[in-house]
Amino acid sequence: MIELLALPGLPEVRPGDDLAQLIIATGTELTSADTLVVAHKVVSKAEGRLVDLADVTPGPRARQLAADHGKDPRHVEVVLSEAAQLVRADGGRLICRTRHGFVCANAGVDQSNAAEPDQLILLPIDPDASARALRAALPGHPAVVITDSFGRAWRTGQCEVAIGVAGLKPLEDWRGLPDTAGRELHATVIAIADEAAAAADLVRGKDSREPAVRVRGLQRHITTDDGPGVAPLVRKLEDDLFR
Amino acid sequence: MIELLALPGLPEVRPGDDLAQLIIATGTELTSADTLVVAHKVVSKAEGRLVDLADVTPGPRARQLAADHGKDPRHVEVVLSEAAQLVRADGGRLICRTRHGFVCANAGVDQSNAAEPDQLILLPIDPDASARALRAALPGHPAVVITDSFGRAWRTGQCEVAIGVAGLKPLEDWRGLPDTAGRELHATVIAIADEAAAAADLVRGKDSREPAVRVRGLQRHITTDDGPGVAPLVRKLEDDLFR
Repeated sequence: MIELLALPGLPEVRPGDDLAQLIIATGTELTSADTLVVAHKVVSKAEGRLVDLADVTPGPRARQLAADHGKDPRHVEVVLSEAAQLVRADGGRLICRTRHGFVCANAGVDQSNAAEPDQLILLPIDPDASARALRAALPGHPAVVITDSFGRAWRTGQCEVAIGVAGLKPLEDWRGLPDTAGRELHATVIAIADEAAAAADLVRGKDSREPAVRVRGLQRHITTDDGPGVAPLVRKLEDDLFR
Repeated sequence: MIELLALPGLPEVRPGDDLAQLIIATGTELTSADTLVVAHKVVSKAEGRLVDLADVTPGPRARQLAADHGKDPRHVEVVLSEAAQLVRADGGRLICRTRHGFVCANAGVDQSNAAEPDQLILLPIDPDASARALRAALPGHPAVVITDSFGRAWRTGQCEVAIGVAGLKPLEDWRGLPDTAGRELHATVIAIADEAAAAADLVRGKDSREPAVRVRGLQRHITTDDGPGVAPLVRKLEDDLFR
């Protein structure tokens, strides 16, 4: 049995806010057997990962891309500054590889749910470090997964995925283990942290202030140490057939 | 609150078995407010979507691909017969577009969890029809999602995704709706059926006979009519930047 509970609404998070204290103030029980899944926007806001469009001067590449794809050149400038590589630009979509290695639209730079108009929210600098810090600061020290909504190559709609992990095994590796018929299970590695991110998204509304979700029942994937973070979920460039 | 419950183990499913009766026999309460998520393998087995490798004669293209990628030419022959397009072949991986439009490894043809050695399991011919039939046959007529584990372009590990849907809105479209600051939420369409598939996967073990999971708490996405099926989740070819 797994239970998903959206924590009662948090207040609007501002730079410098103590996110752990805001979560504690909801009065939600958290134990070491729980996983807390948190949408990155509140983490980014608390960490001050915000840019005002008014402060951005677009360079020539941003101006050209913006003209080609019908976008705000200042927004594109911020996207390029967050991107290690522009993977595809087509029909208004800028698919980028971020410095963390994530491939997603606009390098994770997003305008929705910002507190101010004309403000952009960036991904945390080091989402694994953000997850570890939150885990350490919360009573019970639940596993922590920080998430964002990513599009997918061949499917429409976005799914929430893990971008930072502390204390949850990101992958469950069944390779070499027998299936129900006792045969070896080929090539089965399950993206537990991404499935937890997706599950948590089901219980909250995008327009509500419910960025944090408690997932109860993932004990077998939880570790005392913080573990490898999100890195095992990021496909290595040399293994990427779709760059 | 959302609750995920793996139904107690089903017996080994054989061609011609009545899957709805096997699910009813578990004694699990199902209502019209529930969503039943079912791994496709039991659906495929009940529908007889099985191929014995001994019955397969590989053609020249299958023999060449098998030699190039270190695979069984009979297996490759079945993969090609299920594929509308070979999207990428690299390092032992055959990424295909299936007749349904899904992009996945081996066109969904898989050997693990088959009842017999040297037997392959194919995807259902029409997974939406399978989902509709199961919904109609189950007491309470819960929404039904049929799933498979797909790899992803830029992330390691597989996530369970929807391949057949009846009675669940596959996408939740927030475009044009206001965010918490009252601004328009850009480009936010959430793949609810895929997130439900991923969530359900967390509660079952790959080696256990727990293909069916009851998801309780998705009422706002459930519809009385069976709806559009999985089609809205499949990116159109002309919109696909990574074919």
